[in-house]
Amino acid sequence: MTIHDGALDHLDIDEILAWVGHEASKHKGEGKVADYIPALKRVAKKKFGMAVCTIQGDEYLFGDAEELFSIQSISKVLTLAMALGHVDTRLWKRVGREPSGSTFNSLIQLERENGIPRNPFINAGALVVTDVVAQYNERPKTDLIQWARTLSGNKKIKYDLEVAKSESETGHRNRAIAYFLKTHGNFKGDVEEVLDVYFHQCSIAMSCLDLARAFLPMANKGRLPGLSKSLMPPRRVKRINSLMMTSGVYDGAGDFAFHVGMPCKSGVGGGIAGVIPGVLSMCVWAPELDKIGNSLVGTKALELFTTKTQLSVF
Amino acid sequence: MTIHDGALDHLDIDEILAWVGHEASKHKGEGKVADYIPALKRVAKKKFGMAVCTIQGDEYLFGDAEELFSIQSISKVLTLAMALGHVDTRLWKRVGREPSGSTFNSLIQLERENGIPRNPFINAGALVVTDVVAQYNERPKTDLIQWARTLSGNKKIKYDLEVAKSESETGHRNRAIAYFLKTHGNFKGDVEEVLDVYFHQCSIAMSCLDLARAFLPMANKGRLPGLSKSLMPPRRVKRINSLMMTSGVYDGAGDFAFHVGMPCKSGVGGGIAGVIPGVLSMCVWAPELDKIGNSLVGTKALELFTTKTQLSVF
Amino acid sequence: MTIHDGALDHLDIDEILAWVGHEASKHKGEGKVADYIPALKRVAKKKFGMAVCTIQGDEYLFGDAEELFSIQSISKVLTLAMALGHVDTRLWKRVGREPSGSTFNSLIQLERENGIPRNPFINAGALVVTDVVAQYNERPKTDLIQWARTLSGNKKIKYDLEVAKSESETGHRNRAIAYFLKTHGNFKGDVEEVLDVYFHQCSIAMSCLDLARAFLPMANKGRLPGLSKSLMPPRRVKRINSLMMTSGVYDGAGDFAFHVGMPCKSGVGGGIAGVIPGVLSMCVWAPELDKIGNSLVGTKALELFTTKTQLSVF
Amino acid sequence: MTIHDGALDHLDIDEILAWVGHEASKHKGEGKVADYIPALKRVAKKKFGMAVCTIQGDEYLFGDAEELFSIQSISKVLTLAMALGHVDTRLWKRVGREPSGSTFNSLIQLERENGIPRNPFINAGALVVTDVVAQYNERPKTDLIQWARTLSGNKKIKYDLEVAKSESETGHRNRAIAYFLKTHGNFKGDVEEVLDVYFHQCSIAMSCLDLARAFLPMANKGRLPGLSKSLMPPRRVKRINSLMMTSGVYDGAGDFAFHVGMPCKSGVGGGIAGVIPGVLSMCVWAPELDKIGNSLVGTKALELFTTKTQLSVF
Repeated sequence: MTIHDGALDHLDIDEILAWVGHEASKHKGEGKVADYIPALKRVAKKKFGMAVCTIQGDEYLFGDAEELFSIQSISKVLTLAMALGHVDTRLWKRVGREPSGSTFNSLIQLERENGIPRNPFINAGALVVTDVVAQYNERPKTDLIQWARTLSGNKKIKYDLEVAKSESETGHRNRAIAYFLKTHGNFKGDVEEVLDVYFHQCSIAMSCLDLARAFLPMANKGRLPGLSKSLMPPRRVKRINSLMMTSGVYDGAGDFAFHVGMPCKSGVGGGIAGVIPGVLSMCVWAPELDKIGNSLVGTKALELFTTKTQLSVF
Repeated sequence: MTIHDGALDHLDIDEILAWVGHEASKHKGEGKVADYIPALKRVAKKKFGMAVCTIQGDEYLFGDAEELFSIQSISKVLTLAMALGHVDTRLWKRVGREPSGSTFNSLIQLERENGIPRNPFINAGALVVTDVVAQYNERPKTDLIQWARTLSGNKKIKYDLEVAKSESETGHRNRAIAYFLKTHGNFKGDVEEVLDVYFHQCSIAMSCLDLARAFLPMANKGRLPGLSKSLMPPRRVKRINSLMMTSGVYDGAGDFAFHVGMPCKSGVGGGIAGVIPGVLSMCVWAPELDKIGNSLVGTKALELFTTKTQLSVF
Repeated sequence: MTIHDGALDHLDIDEILAWVGHEASKHKGEGKVADYIPALKRVAKKKFGMAVCTIQGDEYLFGDAEELFSIQSISKVLTLAMALGHVDTRLWKRVGREPSGSTFNSLIQLERENGIPRNPFINAGALVVTDVVAQYNERPKTDLIQWARTLSGNKKIKYDLEVAKSESETGHRNRAIAYFLKTHGNFKGDVEEVLDVYFHQCSIAMSCLDLARAFLPMANKGRLPGLSKSLMPPRRVKRINSLMMTSGVYDGAGDFAFHVGMPCKSGVGGGIAGVIPGVLSMCVWAPELDKIGNSLVGTKALELFTTKTQLSVF
Repeated sequence: MTIHDGALDHLDIDEILAWVGHEASKHKGEGKVADYIPALKRVAKKKFGMAVCTIQGDEYLFGDAEELFSIQSISKVLTLAMALGHVDTRLWKRVGREPSGSTFNSLIQLERENGIPRNPFINAGALVVTDVVAQYNERPKTDLIQWARTLSGNKKIKYDLEVAKSESETGHRNRAIAYFLKTHGNFKGDVEEVLDVYFHQCSIAMSCLDLARAFLPMANKGRLPGLSKSLMPPRRVKRINSLMMTSGVYDGAGDFAFHVGMPCKSGVGGGIAGVIPGVLSMCVWAPELDKIGNSLVGTKALELFTTKTQLSVF
């Protein structure tokens, strides 16, 4: 990544967000809100927010950008960064870096590849990552929420305990995956203890603004603007970004790169957070999902944004 | 893509290429030259060349950068650009845009997804692309070689007829794929006629310099420097780049993005061509392949280059 | 197999066939006639015939038992017996003996198991068998039809050339499989030449009576009643029967064994031929197929027959 | 099945068993004892026993026929008979009847077929069967051991608690499967409670003689000789036999039917129990396993026995 100071010159981000918001809103009603747990199902499906943070320190908001939502799988980026902080490249002995080529919680590929999940963003891979976090942190849930607070600069961020409880009650597939990883020696902790961390990480409630801020270091070589200290080395940031590009949006990575062209991580809560390296970070939120599980209006908004601004990495 | 004029300031590309060449050469002997046809097997395995073309019009060479080699699958980018010129987005009704998640000539995914190849760079997808080229060009082989000459500015480029003949003799898997596509109504032409074009496209002989020049429009919004006329619209370029990023290097897209971080297309002849959008195009050539079929020394060289220059898209 | 002289005592086969015919006919209209080639589609879907031949030499007919139909995949038993006559157990180096566990023309398992078809009754395996027949017989088509005539004692049996032509015109999947086998070195002959034999074998026109007679040696240690000479050694018969039991009715072997309990081979022309070893051979014909490609009324009839007579092998 | 009184005339079973024992023993040392739990690993690998029970009430023993061993998956026949007694054909809404076409504990097919295991003898299917047993029996472990005692006529049969404990400690794959079935609504009980029954059933210690006796009703229309009362209806027996034929010996059903030709169920403890319907039941035991998990010497012995006696069902 090269820091690209002039990239935003001549762009009126506020105006662009307004236009994107208007255009993308036309697709409201075309998707389906996640309904596997009551807490997600209950969310008002017309919600739509966007937040942009630039490496110069500017912030732009649209719509419901400050409303809290369940970050779900976006949390996998947070735990990945933590786990890499603990074991660095040794993580890649336990998790692959390839797109999955199949649905996001498939046991098939896991079986065919002897218990090595294809990447850290499919559920199996994320469970291995959380297993590392649980192993290296004495109080993993406390440390994780603190990490989310540090990245976003918002001390009020917390777990939504009702969501965490629901996740646990319906989380048999994750139990199946964890036990399957254990048969392959790729799961160190106690299954229920690690799953407790995992279900909590999915339940973290953040806003578009919180997430855009939390992702800004990934656009800025690991630094928060104004913070003298680096939160992650540039090499790690580059690699997390590449993983988001090839595996961040479930089985839709190719289409997403094709239409949007920025590294992003999505969650079934309807959020998508991503970065234009060297330029900005961004988060959109709209609860209705497309067929592969990404926010439908959110994806549309990101496509319109990168097309309008010509800020795709491609 | 934003054109990024200052990105190369303070970088001495010649010096960097020399250093990269020295470091990457240490890995000679670790790979294996493709041997499925005699003509490829015969290539001197110690060959190693690199060429860089910037959007400012500068060119940098290293080693065997002007020696001809068999471009093989890199030709899939050339035919893809041609086919998109003919049918534009209608192509995506016949070919997907997702990473394959399995080996590059797998029939499995093709069967599971009812004859729609996952992307235009796996063999099945490339055959559909060539089927389009054969359908819309009266003299497809003549037009294709002319397209390669136009892009590279080298009128001497031609097919290696011995390679084309060998490809045909050993090409039963491609015949199997073509007939399988035909059972699904996703192959219009006569199988042997289209395969004749396909085997010829794989046999095109070009040098690193030829390919770096041919890929320059993909770094420059579709234009060759000094050419007033656009060869491809910017939107198409952006999309070809995204496809190279997610599917350009066989089943190694994730790892390649992770280590190299630039959209590239590789071939079993040992070439890899790619771009840093808005900055430069590049081609490396070293015949020994790694386990998944990409040039081993070439991949190493590209990783060293993007690390040293910090020019990764991430 | 032990010859079981008393098994049919006290059974009135004519009466039982009449009852079975009446009961099974109630299911007419529940299936679907094969329509991938015009010649099959044209068959009157209400046709229904049955023929039983005992090892004592008695024959029993019901309904359209003497009407000719397209034997299709039932021919795979005939070619298997021929090929085993040529290469005996060496065949099993090229073809497996396990149920396929997936649809009958799947390329998936073939790819996963390196070009060794799972069994001789899936299309891939049958193509290898026909490849052997074509290799060892100077005039394979002449010899094959002669073999059908010898087994059934009917010199009038012949190919339906219109069906053979249609099979060839729509047979791209078989071409795909043949070329795929060739990439794995498991197909010796010229693809189109061997397929010509294959499409002809599928087109053989026989009646229930012809097929019941042709299968009688498989119930009688390899002999036709009244013929002093053995047509196949007992060991080969036993093995062909076991293969019909585990793989003879496409992906429905388990259900078929469960309900019917006799080794059978079915064809998409609506015929099913089988044996109770040591007791009798049998063929039913009714063109409507169930979802997995077996005659629906025919399967029902066989289930009723084995239940009523208690003649299941189980 | 027809009862086949004369089938054993002129056969000296004692002499045949002695010959089979001598010939099969030559293969000792070619297999590998199961070692995933210590209790199995510890068994003397040279052990070899056989027992035959005829429907006339005669019994024949060879070698270590009265020594106890861990019946493991052979128990799946016992629980299947129990579950069918509870829910009869409704079981087939939750479990299929097709050969698996892949290894015996594969999650792949389970995922592809939406949580319906292919048959009751792969682990997933057996877990559903045990789930039924646990649901319908108030004291499932007590009732199951009682059922084993009734069938074999041996009141001393019991669980090997050390084996059961080891199974539980290493049984993460079964936990994975159970939770996966739960996500598909195909597992009613508490996972650990049902698994407790399952691990116990695998641990039952029986001898060849015990098992041959316990399987005799499956050769005799559901009756034990001398018992006036039927233990299972003939229809159920026929169906269990057919399931053993198509799915009883892991992924080797085709080969086993081809070479042996009798319905059998094997276990990783080295036992194989089976029947010639209408004639006899039989159990062999030799701990060394072949590559797919069946007793190597035991399989050889059964092949020699059916060849010598010509008692194959084919």
